[in-house]
Amino acid sequence: MKINVNPAKGMRDLLPGEKEIRDHVEKKIIDTYKNNGFQLIETPVVENIDNLLGSKGGENLKLIFKIMKRGNKLNLSKENLTESDLAELGLRYDLTIPLSRFYCKHRNELPSVFKAIQVGNVFRAERAQKGRYRSFKQCDIDIIGNPDCDAEIELLTSTAKALTELDVSDFQIRINDRRILKSVVLGCGFSEEDFEGVCIILDKLDKIGMDGIRKELSGKDYPVENIDRILAMLDEISSGDIDILGNYGVPEEVVENMKCITRNVTAIADGKYDIVFDFTLVRGMGYYTGPIFEIAYKGLGYSIAGGGRYDEMIGSFIGQSIPAVGFSIGFERLVNQMIEDKYKSPGKEKVVLLYDMEEEISDVIMKADELRADGYAVSLFKKAKKVSKQLDQLTNQGFDKFAMYSKDELEIKNLD
Amino acid sequence: MKINVNPAKGMRDLLPGEKEIRDHVEKKIIDTYKNNGFQLIETPVVENIDNLLGSKGGENLKLIFKIMKRGNKLNLSKENLTESDLAELGLRYDLTIPLSRFYCKHRNELPSVFKAIQVGNVFRAERAQKGRYRSFKQCDIDIIGNPDCDAEIELLTSTAKALTELDVSDFQIRINDRRILKSVVLGCGFSEEDFEGVCIILDKLDKIGMDGIRKELSGKDYPVENIDRILAMLDEISSGDIDILGNYGVPEEVVENMKCITRNVTAIADGKYDIVFDFTLVRGMGYYTGPIFEIAYKGLGYSIAGGGRYDEMIGSFIGQSIPAVGFSIGFERLVNQMIEDKYKSPGKEKVVLLYDMEEEISDVIMKADELRADGYAVSLFKKAKKVSKQLDQLTNQGFDKFAMYSKDELEIKNLD
Repeated sequence: MKINVNPAKGMRDLLPGEKEIRDHVEKKIIDTYKNNGFQLIETPVVENIDNLLGSKGGENLKLIFKIMKRGNKLNLSKENLTESDLAELGLRYDLTIPLSRFYCKHRNELPSVFKAIQVGNVFRAERAQKGRYRSFKQCDIDIIGNPDCDAEIELLTSTAKALTELDVSDFQIRINDRRILKSVVLGCGFSEEDFEGVCIILDKLDKIGMDGIRKELSGKDYPVENIDRILAMLDEISSGDIDILGNYGVPEEVVENMKCITRNVTAIADGKYDIVFDFTLVRGMGYYTGPIFEIAYKGLGYSIAGGGRYDEMIGSFIGQSIPAVGFSIGFERLVNQMIEDKYKSPGKEKVVLLYDMEEEISDVIMKADELRADGYAVSLFKKAKKVSKQLDQLTNQGFDKFAMYSKDELEIKNLD
Repeated sequence: MKINVNPAKGMRDLLPGEKEIRDHVEKKIIDTYKNNGFQLIETPVVENIDNLLGSKGGENLKLIFKIMKRGNKLNLSKENLTESDLAELGLRYDLTIPLSRFYCKHRNELPSVFKAIQVGNVFRAERAQKGRYRSFKQCDIDIIGNPDCDAEIELLTSTAKALTELDVSDFQIRINDRRILKSVVLGCGFSEEDFEGVCIILDKLDKIGMDGIRKELSGKDYPVENIDRILAMLDEISSGDIDILGNYGVPEEVVENMKCITRNVTAIADGKYDIVFDFTLVRGMGYYTGPIFEIAYKGLGYSIAGGGRYDEMIGSFIGQSIPAVGFSIGFERLVNQMIEDKYKSPGKEKVVLLYDMEEEISDVIMKADELRADGYAVSLFKKAKKVSKQLDQLTNQGFDKFAMYSKDELEIKNLD
């Protein structure tokens, strides 16, 4: 039998070098979160299809990989077959649906305020293109059951600690609140139905500037006086001064909540990073109900983490009200950035021990074990005919040092 | 929207306690293998369906979860629809097919003898029953490209080291060789076609004894003289004396190979475990071509690891000859056994820090950071109205200690 040696379209194999960096990053993040009181859980990559299709996933619902029914359940002779006749399971497209299901199922066994870590692959049948995969890792923390802003503060500072542990230092937290956006936009005279549309345009301020915003808003035929008002407000609010929000109809408790978050995060950050209120931060997902935030690498055009409060979502699954706030590190972006920055994971030094065919292998292995006891990771290889070529190859494959086996003391040399 | 809060049938959620033990076991195994010169890779859980269905997976092929085609590729109006019209991808049912594909794709980037670690979930639509899951973890090492017995010796002793690292000590390696089985069974007069059937019966010696073996062989209407011969041989060979194999038509190099493995493994084991030749070890998979082996917990009726040499499989994918030998730890069995044995993973001590609503949260977090710097994992919780009930719950949820927040030095007390 011959096989197609390529991974499935849009999926990828990880070779030892890349795998090692990824695992190191993942472990650092998890260890930091655990250290900060979060608990790691795991949910299956497969979910019941109704849970996925019934979720508020927007465009993602079109990208679900559906798994076929089996045995008698699969009736191919039915007339007017539809996809829903054929599928009963699907691959998860995010970690939030599984977390919500998990929490509703197990909440009696969990702390009253549950601080969850979930790291795992999610699957989306995106159009294949460079750097975009159909299976990729997400890395989420969520605090469920706490309506107060200490939850946001813990999420933000714990993620900042994880990045700091990975020597990522040049970053900034941007924060806004869906309630602030709503108060201001509606206060300028826009209608509820126009809210999301106006937000999508505001989100572009970075890229298109004030003139661009005016042009795009005008293009939508919004009333000129509303556009004038919001541009004036945008100008004033862009200073980042939270205190002026009250002047624009934002309720006092929302302003106080934002001040509480920025004040406490600033205290904890202690100058190592900063947090700025940014009225043009929108974030796409419609399920956010309160603070929303992102972490930007200074200078790069994208965020490496994002999240927000979504108080209505988990509870809606079981007809109750359950406050929740989550933060997701863009694992793939972060790792790619670190690989680009030539980050080297601090694993053990890898020593190659070369031996002749004729040696008794137990002698060689026990000698290797002595080196292992000294702290090296040791790989055995039979000596090739052309040893120098063999050593060149092993160097390219990421080994650090080598030694020739002998019964006496070994001499360990650098490869390069 | 209401959801079904249960995981998909036969799948499971992992709560923090179980997840912690599993991750600890996985990490110990991986670290030991890496230390012994193996390299960790990762392949996608999704494979092209043709690779899965075209593989030598026996009964497992009937258990594949198939993923539906998408968009224009999915033609539901076609007449006489079959499953193969609908599926183009599937979930892997083992790690060996993905490894074979991976190796054939990437071998120019890998060492000439490639020592792989792969740990990941595989999926089989088994009939649901207690303790059997439709998604479970496998933990494999394989050495590809080495036809000699030093490969087997490294596999066996590395796995033994991993178990020893996990404080699993009371185990025994059982080893046989498909070529020995074949020589002996054919030498007794059985035909090639009867070989697998006779092996399946021999495999039961443990359970049904010599009389049972005679009864089952007779039931298949094999010639009486063949049955007499194999029972006489079984009697003599059951002593475990490898040297007598030559008398039964086993080629000398096969006998020497077996002696080389047992001698070297015994030397390395140094009394910490043992390796025994066991002629009745059969192992089901038809693709084995040489030594086959298992690790038995002494006293338990099942093995916790198994593997063997499969020189024809990887090569057949690309029309070449590529020697390979693999060993797979039964991760789920091992972990279940360790949980049953009350194994406690040696993580950080978990401290709960309780605080009042009124505190400035950055003060509390910075105090918690001091405890973290002292080596504790610290979780913050707001003080509940009934603190003693809250502490009871936290004890049940696996926390070890607690402290009440104050600006002064904290007093850390045991929970229990």
